Formats: sequence, structure tokens, C-alpha cells
Amino acid sequence: MATDSAHRCDRIWTNARLATMAAAGSVERGMIAAKDGRIVHAGPVDTRYDAPELIDCDGRWITPGLIDCHSHLVHAGNRAHEFELRLEGASYEDIARGGGGIVSTMAATRIADEDTLVAYALERLDTLIAEGMTTIEVKSGYGLSTEAEVKMLRAARRLGSERNVRVVTTFLGAHALPPEFSGNADGYIDLVCNDMIPAVAAEGLADAVDAFCEGIGFTPGQVSRVFEAARMHGLPVKLHAEQLSNLHGATLAASFDALSADHLEHLDAVGIDAMAKAGSVAVLLPGAYYFTRETQLPPVAGLREAGVPIALATDCNPGTSPLTSLLLTMNMGATLFRLTVEECLAGVTREAARALGLLGETGTLEPGKSCDLAIWDVERPAELVYRMGANPLHARVWKGL
Amino acid sequence: MATDSAHRCDRIWTNARLATMAAAGSVERGMIAAKDGRIVHAGPVDTRYDAPELIDCDGRWITPGLIDCHSHLVHAGNRAHEFELRLEGASYEDIARGGGGIVSTMAATRIADEDTLVAYALERLDTLIAEGMTTIEVKSGYGLSTEAEVKMLRAARRLGSERNVRVVTTFLGAHALPPEFSGNADGYIDLVCNDMIPAVAAEGLADAVDAFCEGIGFTPGQVSRVFEAARMHGLPVKLHAEQLSNLHGATLAASFDALSADHLEHLDAVGIDAMAKAGSVAVLLPGAYYFTRETQLPPVAGLREAGVPIALATDCNPGTSPLTSLLLTMNMGATLFRLTVEECLAGVTREAARALGLLGETGTLEPGKSCDLAIWDVERPAELVYRMGANPLHARVWKGL
Ligand SMILES: [Zn+2]
Ligand SMILES: [Zn+2]
Repeated sequence: MATDSAHRCDRIWTNARLATMAAAGSVERGMIAAKDGRIVHAGPVDTRYDAPELIDCDGRWITPGLIDCHSHLVHAGNRAHEFELRLEGASYEDIARGGGGIVSTMAATRIADEDTLVAYALERLDTLIAEGMTTIEVKSGYGLSTEAEVKMLRAARRLGSERNVRVVTTFLGAHALPPEFSGNADGYIDLVCNDMIPAVAAEGLADAVDAFCEGIGFTPGQVSRVFEAARMHGLPVKLHAEQLSNLHGATLAASFDALSADHLEHLDAVGIDAMAKAGSVAVLLPGAYYFTRETQLPPVAGLREAGVPIALATDCNPGTSPLTSLLLTMNMGATLFRLTVEECLAGVTREAARALGLLGETGTLEPGKSCDLAIWDVERPAELVYRMGANPLHARVWKGL
Repeated sequence: MATDSAHRCDRIWTNARLATMAAAGSVERGMIAAKDGRIVHAGPVDTRYDAPELIDCDGRWITPGLIDCHSHLVHAGNRAHEFELRLEGASYEDIARGGGGIVSTMAATRIADEDTLVAYALERLDTLIAEGMTTIEVKSGYGLSTEAEVKMLRAARRLGSERNVRVVTTFLGAHALPPEFSGNADGYIDLVCNDMIPAVAAEGLADAVDAFCEGIGFTPGQVSRVFEAARMHGLPVKLHAEQLSNLHGATLAASFDALSADHLEHLDAVGIDAMAKAGSVAVLLPGAYYFTRETQLPPVAGLREAGVPIALATDCNPGTSPLTSLLLTMNMGATLFRLTVEECLAGVTREAARALGLLGETGTLEPGKSCDLAIWDVERPAELVYRMGANPLHARVWKGL
């Protein structure tokens, strides 16, 4: 039978079960067809399609390629020793006096050159990729000078050419106050707004702007200034908000139509409402919750009720979440936050794409989107959330290859 | 320079850093020499040794091969769907009515043949092996009939011939009450003592005998009978004790010179004292603590003070700990139980060997022991405990190969 040109494509995955994460739901006898790197069909087997390459999936499950929508993947230094000392009873103050904490990561990141930053990040990236991750967001925020922030973002961009993965970058200059600005946070915010953001925007190094709104970070007023500068340069914003206390950062972020507000353990009803109205995604970070032994749970029931989309991410960072597994992130989302299996899977696919403004491009198995797939050796998708420490990935596809 | 015969060996790993987990502590410029599968030297570089095979470790760290001293690795069936239903609000009763819970694992295990049980277990075993595990304990306890318990133990023994790994087996007939003995727990214990233990002992299928002492398991009186039968057949004992309540199982186990008492969240000072006097190891299972969202912490400070050795294990099982990572087990031991890095590493090496009665054979890097090594791409051993989701194993050696 001759195939008409509308059904001729490059590659077909057949005899698969699909978790489309879209309106089509799950498809038991499914097929995906791709052409020029894009999905042209994702649904029941349709014999009109033909391709030179036909892949029999032996009944395996296919999900969208996983997405990590919040990571600090690029950094130098290692805080394993600090972790060791803390377990032996050292206080945060002891660690800080010994040059530890975020300042140690900043110092190590500042002296590392771009190649070194890329090399360190690739180790972590490869671990995530081995679990079927196809898109990752990477933040700056350990340079804390114009030069070092630019260096971090260049390193982040380079990850996307070193591996078959989509890298989305976020400028997080307002992550912490560098020691040279001690006592002068407003002065540092001047630098972020007047020097860093223009430099980063001029080079096209960032896809979004983030900040850390917290007692130990920056005030809502300072964050507002950063967001104003971002808006002037046409960059969308997101925010580390309500992690340790409620400064109403989510409401502030929503007022700037933020892509997402992240962490949110201390989020209240007003913040939930503001996020729902703005369409901001709630990015929950169970790895940080677990690793810091937090006990305040994010308001999952309230978010659900208000229809705020929920994403999950690793928050991969050396201080509070040295986590490089989206499978484990899902398990923590279910075990610690009581998200359902469906919510966990959506949290690292569809909703993570939404949190990055990429829902038109990836995150579900739908025609028109990039053909980003994870093919799994499991009997049902729930196993991806249930197991701890296993990696049942059979194959990974990015842009159809 | 000619090598005298006392220093001639088969293989040498040099330019390594050693975490011997023995009196020698850590050795910065270390070397391991092996002959006939046994360590002949583990310490500073000693140029008198020579071997046809010299492995340059490029400064990598070597620890003893990891040991999982408590697992239910052999079982059929999958409880991911039950996990999914629970997250959607189903109660334990709902699940049980739907044929779920431990009875579903029992039913699946009973109908599976030995080859099938081996095939399922190998998947999990390979995941653990990929992280440098060289010795594992595997329990029966899902068969709950003489025939099915024997089948499980045969499958467990076979794992040791299918892979390069040391398998230690434990008979756990008194794990749960099979439905056909409903209301007649003493009758089932009769079967365990008079039929199962003799059958298992006659075939040499078990290295130890275990039981589940709990309100939902068996009473101390019933456990005593099991332990008496084990003693009659020359088998050492261990016990699932004080997980959900304090039935003084640890004290009972200690009175039988138990190798270990395991779980122990509800252990009290009397139990600690009994364990210390008997030399029983406290096997803590943070994966089950995490997965079941337990909040009662095991009495780590009391165990330390009394000098009770502490081991860590996966408790790999489909109902309460679907965990196949000793690295993650260590992270949980540190994060959730506040064990130090040193305690976590000892917990999956030296103390795990002690819990299996194998301290003379493995668990530390010392002359005379089996040359079981894990070689790691880390800057310091603390990284093995600190990271979540990464596997920095460079190479694994079992019996010198
Ligand atoms: Zn973050
Ligand atoms: Zn157990």
C-alpha cells in the first residue's frame, strides 16, 4: 500500500503504551510518528503512517521526555564536607565562620573558568539525562558579579551544545548578597538592575529572571526592582518564594505575571489566589524539603482547589538539594507531599513545560510538539513514582532522535 | 628487584585512597594487594608487593564492597498500583478488600516458579550491584507454605550463582499469617517450627532465621517458639522488632544471642541494654521509615551511648520500602536519622557484615578478608552519603576480581 505524503514520516514507535499527559490520556495500543523532529501522530495505531525506521516498543510505556524546571546545575565546589560537619554537630554559624555555606560555592564558582563549570555540570546533567530528561532549566546565582554571572550563563548555554538536551537559562543575580556588598543590599540590587540584567540581555544569555525573596535573601521591594528591570528587557520572571517564611513573594510574582513561584511551603490563601489568577505555576521542590528536614508542607490541597498548576523539580544545588534524579523527585512528591501519581508525572512533564513557558514545544505527546520521549521498562507509569533507586529507562528520544 | 614469595600476589590497586573502615582508618596514599581472592595488604603503598596486574586508581577512593544486610529481594508481583490508589485516598482496608497488601505479594509469589522469582530478583540485584554492593542478605517470607518458602530460598541461593555476589539467606516463615491459617496463628507457628524449619535446615537453604514480632505479626511467645526451633537446628536468629510498637522483641532476640534486631523505632532503654550485652547489631531501615511516613525515630543516641553497633539496610520490599539503593539508604540514614557520615559508611560495610556474622570475611579492608571493593569517583567519602540520585561508582571488585 502506497503511503500518501501526509502520512510519510521519519520514524515510528509502535506497539507502545502512551501516557500522553494530554487530553488523549493513556493509550494502550499506541503509536508515535515523527517527522523533522516533531510529533505528527501520538495515539492509537494508525496504519496509514509509514517511515523508513520502525521501532517496536514491545508494549513498553512512553511518556514525554522529563523536564527539570528548577535547577542550579552550574556551580563549582562541593559541600559534602559541610554536610559531614553538620552531622557531627557543627552549627550553621560554625560552618559560615569556616568559610562554608553559599559563600563557599560563590568563591569556588568565581575562580572556576567556564570550561571547568561546564565539566562539573555535565556530570550532573548526564545523571539526569540517563533518566530520560530532555529539557532542563539552569540558573545563575553563584557568581554574584556581572562577570561571574555572565560566565555561569554562558556555561549553562553551552550544556545545550555539549549534549542532546534543551537548556533554558535563568538569571538569578539576586540569589544572595556577595560579601563585598555586606550591609548594602540596595547597592547590590542597583548592580543587578543597572549592570547585570542589561549585560545578560544584550548577550541573550537568559530566558527568564529569578530572585530569592526571603529574610536571608532579598525584600519584596528589592525583588520588585529586579522584576521591573527584567520587564524593561522583555524577560519573563519567576521567584523563589515562601520557602522559610511568608513575605508574600508569590503575590508579588503574580503581579508581574510570573511563569512560576517556587518552593512555597509558607504560601497562604491570598498567594494561592493571586497565582491562580495570574496563571503562575507552583513549582514544588521536595528534595530541598527533605534534605533540610523541613516540616512545613506546601499547601497542596489549596493549590489543587484553586486550579494552580503544580510542577516538581530537583532544585539541584550543593547546599540544600544535592539531587540529580527526577524519578526520586517524583517519589518525594508523592511520599512527602502526597501528590498523586498523575500529579507527579504531570509535574515533571506537562506542568514543568508550562513553568518554563514551553508548553507549546514539549511536555506532552501531541502532534506539533518536539518529539521528546522517554521509553520505560515498566508495567505501569505508577512504577516510575513508586520505586526508589531504580532507573527503568529503556530509551530516550530528543527532537525525534 | 626480585619479589620474595610472601609479597607476590595476583592484583594490586595502587595510587588509591582507602577508607578501610578498620583500625587503620583512612589512608591517603594507599594500596591494596590481593592473592587468591583475599586481601594480603591494605594500607600505605608498600613497594615490596608485586603482581602481574597493576591497577592505577588515579587517587580514587576505595571502600569495602557495600553490604545490604536486610532485604526481601525475592518476590513476585508489584504494588505500584496499590501505591497509586493509596495516594488517591484509598484506605488500607480498601486495599485489603481489593486483594492488595502483603497477601497480594504472597499470592503472586506462590504462583511464580523459581525461574520467574530469580528473574524478577535479578533486576533489583543488578541495580544494587551497580552501586558497588558485593554481599546481600535475602529473606523468604512471602511463600508462607513449606513448598513456597523453600522455593523462595532456592531462588535466593541461585542469585549467588547468577551474579558475582555473596548471598546470605534467611528463613522468614513467621512473616505474616497466610489466609488458610486465619484465626490460628499458633497452628501456623506449629507448621513453621515442625515442618518448614526442618525442611529448610535439611537442604541447607537458610543461614539464619527471622520473624516479625508485632501486633500485626506474631507475639513474643510465638517468636520464642520459632527461635527455639532455629536453635535446635543450629541456625542463628534475628528479628523484625519494635517497628510499630514496643513488644520487647529486641530483648527477646538478645536472649537468643540474635545477630541483629531490625527496624527498632520503638526500642526502649531496656531493649538497648539487652542488645548491648548480647552484642546484637541494630539494623536501621530508613527507607521503610521514609516510605511509610513514620515519625517515631529510632533511639540513635541511646544505641551510640550503649555501644550497640548500628547497620543500615534497604529493607527492599514491595509494600513498605521499594528501595534498591544503598547510597540512598545512607543519605536517608544521615538526613532522617542524623547518623554521621562515618556511621552511615560503617552501616553498609563493617556493621552490616557484623549483622550477618560475616565480619571475619568481609566489611573492612583488612588482610585475610575477601577482596571485596568499591572504587569511587569522589573527592571524599562523604559525597557517597551527601549526593542523592548520583552513582559515582568507578569499579567493583568481588573476591579479588
Ligand atoms: Zn532554587
Ligand atoms: Zn524487613
